Amino acid sequence: MAGSKHIVLISDFGVGSPYVAEMKGAILSVCSQAQIVDGTHSVPPQDILHGAQVTRQLATAFPKGTVFVVVVDPGVGSERRLLLVEHQNRLFIGPNNGVLSLLFHEDAAIRVLDKPCYWRATISSTFHGRDIMGPTAGHLAQGVPTSEVASPFLDFPHRCELPKPQVSDREVIGEIVFIDGFGNLVSNISIENLNLGSVVECSGKRLSVVKTYAAREDGAAIALVGSQGYLEIAVVNGSAAQHLNVQVGTSVRVFIE
Amino acid sequence: MAGSKHIVLISDFGVGSPYVAEMKGAILSVCSQAQIVDGTHSVPPQDILHGAQVTRQLATAFPKGTVFVVVVDPGVGSERRLLLVEHQNRLFIGPNNGVLSLLFHEDAAIRVLDKPCYWRATISSTFHGRDIMGPTAGHLAQGVPTSEVASPFLDFPHRCELPKPQVSDREVIGEIVFIDGFGNLVSNISIENLNLGSVVECSGKRLSVVKTYAAREDGAAIALVGSQGYLEIAVVNGSAAQHLNVQVGTSVRVFIE
Amino acid sequence: MAGSKHIVLISDFGVGSPYVAEMKGAILSVCSQAQIVDGTHSVPPQDILHGAQVTRQLATAFPKGTVFVVVVDPGVGSERRLLLVEHQNRLFIGPNNGVLSLLFHEDAAIRVLDKPCYWRATISSTFHGRDIMGPTAGHLAQGVPTSEVASPFLDFPHRCELPKPQVSDREVIGEIVFIDGFGNLVSNISIENLNLGSVVECSGKRLSVVKTYAAREDGAAIALVGSQGYLEIAVVNGSAAQHLNVQVGTSVRVFIE
Repeated sequence: MAGSKHIVLISDFGVGSPYVAEMKGAILSVCSQAQIVDGTHSVPPQDILHGAQVTRQLATAFPKGTVFVVVVDPGVGSERRLLLVEHQNRLFIGPNNGVLSLLFHEDAAIRVLDKPCYWRATISSTFHGRDIMGPTAGHLAQGVPTSEVASPFLDFPHRCELPKPQVSDREVIGEIVFIDGFGNLVSNISIENLNLGSVVECSGKRLSVVKTYAAREDGAAIALVGSQGYLEIAVVNGSAAQHLNVQVGTSVRVFIE
Repeated sequence: MAGSKHIVLISDFGVGSPYVAEMKGAILSVCSQAQIVDGTHSVPPQDILHGAQVTRQLATAFPKGTVFVVVVDPGVGSERRLLLVEHQNRLFIGPNNGVLSLLFHEDAAIRVLDKPCYWRATISSTFHGRDIMGPTAGHLAQGVPTSEVASPFLDFPHRCELPKPQVSDREVIGEIVFIDGFGNLVSNISIENLNLGSVVECSGKRLSVVKTYAAREDGAAIALVGSQGYLEIAVVNGSAAQHLNVQVGTSVRVFIE
Repeated sequence: MAGSKHIVLISDFGVGSPYVAEMKGAILSVCSQAQIVDGTHSVPPQDILHGAQVTRQLATAFPKGTVFVVVVDPGVGSERRLLLVEHQNRLFIGPNNGVLSLLFHEDAAIRVLDKPCYWRATISSTFHGRDIMGPTAGHLAQGVPTSEVASPFLDFPHRCELPKPQVSDREVIGEIVFIDGFGNLVSNISIENLNLGSVVECSGKRLSVVKTYAAREDGAAIALVGSQGYLEIAVVNGSAAQHLNVQVGTSVRVFIE
């Protein structure tokens, strides 16, 4: 798994946080050739499920060999372990709190970071992204094998679960799981449960399924298949989150024709 | 036009959006050596004119050979075409909605992206930044010639226009076209219409033209020539946008002495 | 001091500002191999002391040879000089307004940027980050020695001071100096003044000192040693800034047992 020296960072530090820069410094201090990419730092504070979703969204967007460091870690300094997961030829480092768990199945090869010689000399109780995860990612980018920096994890990893839609003969009931920067509402209903004849209901409104954001006049509320393959609700040239007053968790219903 | 492998991204995705990271992953999956730079992702959603201004502002700030990808694309998935423009030895990719049009004149060499072999295998209807524009930029950074990824565009490109100031013998009437992060108000009145003796009026206030932000006491409203060569209104160590209650579009008047 | 071509940017431009991109373009136009890292651009506008703190926080986080460019520069265009400071084998460029002064002592080797041949051809009165500091950093990253781009600074540099805690036999009185993206409150009381038996008082609340954020139940207000070695006040899985209604400058008291 040589080649790429790309390290993708995902965190809940907030855009512009100096903590992000401290992590980058820690990585570059180990591997000055590392190419660090900001995945996102806009995971809501301590929101493990959101972090897990973004991690899954970005996992295969980057080339094989990429190392991901996922720091949504409210349990930092406690007994929780730090894991290293290999998935589709990418490596993922993060706490054992479920934030990596949308990536792997029962049979995944999971390791635990337990080799302090690959960590910072001094370890704080509050910032293992800088002190342990970042330096370990740097060593992996340097070519150190996973078996050197981590041992097999023999316990059951903590898992988190995305809400699953309820599917019956006549309808599918799901919910909004992500709101993007445009105010588009991304649901957990996948493309298989949809066709262009479907009728969608959300927040008391009935919407028809169209192909593109530009398929209706400005201000019209529409449903369409988003870029991840899930049902999405949008307002043409506007914010569906504002117009429909919808939040993460609001239910969405698809009537099957 | 070899050499630089720099790719500058401009979008309305919002800072911290995972869509930005998906685009970076798409580029790096094609050209792992690409050096990707965030131009800005703070273009207001669907604001083509703002995107066009920022693109022009950054166009010559980067070295020759740089590839720009401009994703302000409310018409994604519709019939609108994707263009490739060469301008002053830089390349610009973006939709044919005017967002690139402040760069070129009637005689510009414009191409249209029409070679799916340089795109992602699967194309969504909602994210051509990731599926078409990003991968194409990656191939260009790899050294693939423009004539390989795009054909001559034989139609008239869509254009957008910046408001032009009205110039008479006694005054110039322009407007605020951009507000920066400090709350400084950037107008469309260029340095030729100004001298240090001019008097400027905006939002009912008369301001004199000074040379630097520090030329008056804290809290004073001033006018000066900004870093792009346009008349700018500022409040010393404060926010002119807040103090003067001004928005994009507010008129600015310069009395010619 | 060869090797690293990393340039770290710190500014008060605001995340997403095109000014950041203009600086990057100016650097890459001089040194196309430069690896530019965003330190932070979230320094509050014109807040020199905040900029100085972040600069000190990040100074040793990056490898030796790193060049830092610190643009918190409300006096741009005035008589204030631009300095180049060497500190622990890193280089720091910034205005002589105190923003670099938490790094150096009386005996530091300080230089002044006075060689226009290393600057942009045209110098604005409002953006020396792009026109002088950025290009100079690019030349340093190219390997040009400090003595080429700057002369010894023979004056006394401007300094800023962090508030110092008052220490008596029975208590230490300090204050909040930084609030992070989680709403954690970082004080100026260092770890030497603390032990796990200490009682801390802030905003009328008495808090005990624990080791990790997860040491208490959700919503509990706690005190702990943060990742920089200073007393920090937090709310478990919440925002202390919101819960305790605290701002930068609010006093914090530690009772010594």
